[in-house]
Amino acid sequence: MANAVNLNSDLGESFGAWHMGNDQAMLGIVKSANIACGFHGGDPTVMRETVRLAKANGVSIGAHPSFPDLQGFGRRQMKMSPAEIEALIAYQTGALMGIAAAEGVRVTHVKPHGALSNMASVEPDLAAAIARAIKAVDPQLIFLVTAQSQMSKAGRKLGLTVAEEVFADRTYGDDGNLTPRSQPHAMIHDAAQSLAHVRRMVEEQAIFSLSGRKIPTPIDSICVHGDEPTAVAVAQSVRDGLSAAQIRILPLPEIVAVN
Amino acid sequence: MANAVNLNSDLGESFGAWHMGNDQAMLGIVKSANIACGFHGGDPTVMRETVRLAKANGVSIGAHPSFPDLQGFGRRQMKMSPAEIEALIAYQTGALMGIAAAEGVRVTHVKPHGALSNMASVEPDLAAAIARAIKAVDPQLIFLVTAQSQMSKAGRKLGLTVAEEVFADRTYGDDGNLTPRSQPHAMIHDAAQSLAHVRRMVEEQAIFSLSGRKIPTPIDSICVHGDEPTAVAVAQSVRDGLSAAQIRILPLPEIVAVN
Amino acid sequence: MANAVNLNSDLGESFGAWHMGNDQAMLGIVKSANIACGFHGGDPTVMRETVRLAKANGVSIGAHPSFPDLQGFGRRQMKMSPAEIEALIAYQTGALMGIAAAEGVRVTHVKPHGALSNMASVEPDLAAAIARAIKAVDPQLIFLVTAQSQMSKAGRKLGLTVAEEVFADRTYGDDGNLTPRSQPHAMIHDAAQSLAHVRRMVEEQAIFSLSGRKIPTPIDSICVHGDEPTAVAVAQSVRDGLSAAQIRILPLPEIVAVN
Amino acid sequence: MANAVNLNSDLGESFGAWHMGNDQAMLGIVKSANIACGFHGGDPTVMRETVRLAKANGVSIGAHPSFPDLQGFGRRQMKMSPAEIEALIAYQTGALMGIAAAEGVRVTHVKPHGALSNMASVEPDLAAAIARAIKAVDPQLIFLVTAQSQMSKAGRKLGLTVAEEVFADRTYGDDGNLTPRSQPHAMIHDAAQSLAHVRRMVEEQAIFSLSGRKIPTPIDSICVHGDEPTAVAVAQSVRDGLSAAQIRILPLPEIVAVN
Repeated sequence: MANAVNLNSDLGESFGAWHMGNDQAMLGIVKSANIACGFHGGDPTVMRETVRLAKANGVSIGAHPSFPDLQGFGRRQMKMSPAEIEALIAYQTGALMGIAAAEGVRVTHVKPHGALSNMASVEPDLAAAIARAIKAVDPQLIFLVTAQSQMSKAGRKLGLTVAEEVFADRTYGDDGNLTPRSQPHAMIHDAAQSLAHVRRMVEEQAIFSLSGRKIPTPIDSICVHGDEPTAVAVAQSVRDGLSAAQIRILPLPEIVAVN
Repeated sequence: MANAVNLNSDLGESFGAWHMGNDQAMLGIVKSANIACGFHGGDPTVMRETVRLAKANGVSIGAHPSFPDLQGFGRRQMKMSPAEIEALIAYQTGALMGIAAAEGVRVTHVKPHGALSNMASVEPDLAAAIARAIKAVDPQLIFLVTAQSQMSKAGRKLGLTVAEEVFADRTYGDDGNLTPRSQPHAMIHDAAQSLAHVRRMVEEQAIFSLSGRKIPTPIDSICVHGDEPTAVAVAQSVRDGLSAAQIRILPLPEIVAVN
Repeated sequence: MANAVNLNSDLGESFGAWHMGNDQAMLGIVKSANIACGFHGGDPTVMRETVRLAKANGVSIGAHPSFPDLQGFGRRQMKMSPAEIEALIAYQTGALMGIAAAEGVRVTHVKPHGALSNMASVEPDLAAAIARAIKAVDPQLIFLVTAQSQMSKAGRKLGLTVAEEVFADRTYGDDGNLTPRSQPHAMIHDAAQSLAHVRRMVEEQAIFSLSGRKIPTPIDSICVHGDEPTAVAVAQSVRDGLSAAQIRILPLPEIVAVN
Repeated sequence: MANAVNLNSDLGESFGAWHMGNDQAMLGIVKSANIACGFHGGDPTVMRETVRLAKANGVSIGAHPSFPDLQGFGRRQMKMSPAEIEALIAYQTGALMGIAAAEGVRVTHVKPHGALSNMASVEPDLAAAIARAIKAVDPQLIFLVTAQSQMSKAGRKLGLTVAEEVFADRTYGDDGNLTPRSQPHAMIHDAAQSLAHVRRMVEEQAIFSLSGRKIPTPIDSICVHGDEPTAVAVAQSVRDGLSAAQIRILPLPEIVAVN
């Protein structure tokens, strides 16, 4: 469905006395927020504040669970068993549900964070463990995944509602995976270029690799990162550009109802 | 109501590679379990295992939230603001709800742990913050409190269902508070003595201080601790003795429905 | 000794992916750095980077140990036993010594952080536990303390070299303690005012309370905070102003050798 | 040198309210203790108690640093950069040095724990990072390593004193590595069998694989684990049997001076 898409961002990543990102600005732009659950960022107080801000902005919320690695911001690979992963996802998703309930809103999606997401994008067993956990906690939860990843397959296999995500500020390889950050051209920092990249993906419902290969995929959501200096400008540019192109920006639950 | 009472225990207090208590035996005796939520003990995997065991034994479950103090087992006083406390309670209660949902059971009560409970028993502002958090997360949750404490008052004031708890293995002072562990006669280690202590409290619906003072109180639940060598014997003795005295032992939701 | 003083700042308070303060700028201004040891801020990687920067700037280093409370940045009161405190101080001081040894520099002082410092300023038992730990780890370590506090007394009683510290950006009450942050006029944000405040204290070797009371004290060191927007400007102003007044700014080991 | 060997054990692995192992009994048997430094087990208070017990028993002490993974007891693989590893080792080794200094004893060796040791046994870059950190903190520290591992090579290359360790209760594959715990015959639980295994290795200065292959290696130390029910009996059997065979059991610093 090329005439509507979701815009999401990873938010609530401050912790204790430390601030990260510009949540207030981003929550005025995106329509869904992936909220850190205390394992790579976020703490109960930060989570509550983020949920309040999301609610005030009409932004749908999801859990953004991570490996237990605060120092590494969840970006370091860890080897955990499928059983440990299931419990990890249920715990963090539930924690956000508790905070959200206290604010009178519902958690409507789950999107794995950092190294957990990267590993589960290519490891079927890990992807399946995450999908099982989400289904067990609440089968209505939307599983927001990297487009065309093992998570997408695992979620669909279990009957979950899967939303496929592409990145506004990242390029892709011929296998459909993100270009690793260690390589040149991995990132897109220019707002106009980012918008063109996003529009092409949404309008053609496909990923385009750096070498020009076209990989068809449903695209339900665009992720814009919130923790870089250019983040707010890029996000605003993408949002304005899509709107100008008659593509509606909707919260995730509305998108999956349409798509 | 002297012919029925709940029996509860603090369980799921193992963490990672470390074991604590005899949860398997205790879950065959008690009717409600207060489950550690990862802040003083418990981790997602331990929580899941504990919820499974509770479910298999027909034991109702509640969150046992704590200060964030793993090394101190939640027994060291901390100064946190009411807003921090509210978020802390919502987070931990939600985390257990996530785990419980994944196992197909419901969290039906909340009982604060350790120093948090001791402080909230005498500090009205702290007690009120806890009560507000419980009500915000789910107004159906039972607030399991030290009998006659500030938590009892705060919970009733907010309209929560409050269950008052006495201890099978602890003695009381003339003010109705527990004799501090640092003083002689604080603990009751003898199973027969513990049973007599419990029967008298339940039958007369009152606390009796060491000096003999009678402090009337509704008594909904008896707490038996699970982490001492004599715990299982004491718990079994209390349960058998109450049954022999025609006092039914029920899960917390049934007790509050009756009382 | 009014013609020389130390200038110190609390640094290395970033953690993992989160940044705090402007360590690079501050290390070009102060002569001693109190380095967070991982319990309220700092992690092994941040500590190493901070030690390297301090070394490159000729800045002496000290451990800045805290309660184990990362989320609360060590600013929440905790009740720990004297034995726990002793081990806590030895652990954190040693951890910095390990990092410093790897960089070829020595840890020359210890300054307690946050709530631990505030509590030990008025509780003799806590102050004594900290002093015992420092002496046990290395009796040559300088104990950097709030001027006229219980820590000063405890350190001197044990024969430690004590350096008394006043704050460039805080005002004092008639008892010589800091005006609590919750009260008006607790903070001094104006650079010129801060310099005048510091010069008067150093030149008269006394604290002056808001009401005008003069409390004589040796003053070995001035603390300038690094985590406020105005921090660098205030620190630079104090340093330049003292230099202009012919007051030399020296590292802590040189100051205690002179004083 | 076949007529003297060290006997070591991983100790101080309790944490907060949780107990693990039988340190008191093991410290009466072994001659060197690898002490957990708070990242997989141990806390400042436990470390201090363990150092005191080791000192009272004439047992030499070493740091037993780990990945930062308390819940996983340091047994889960993590991907950390060489720079992070160096800081991690320096921090934990220093922390034990601080505690040891407070008790008047010296840290004389470092032995990596769990997944960190397993990974560094086969990854040259990781092994080199650990060796660099040890040398930087104190070039006199003995590097206690799995015999014939990449850590052995990395330590020797840097000029560290390396002590090669074999396990009393584990079998070996044809490549000289430990049989993975997931395979049959990985563990030796029988005390007599364990002694025979150890004697043969020490007397022939070689590892023997399950299939009978002989892999020559200097053997400086035998590791006996302390956390299994049979641990104390196995350790005592090994010690008594070696003594009966005229093989002296010495602390690590004395062994490396002899060997």
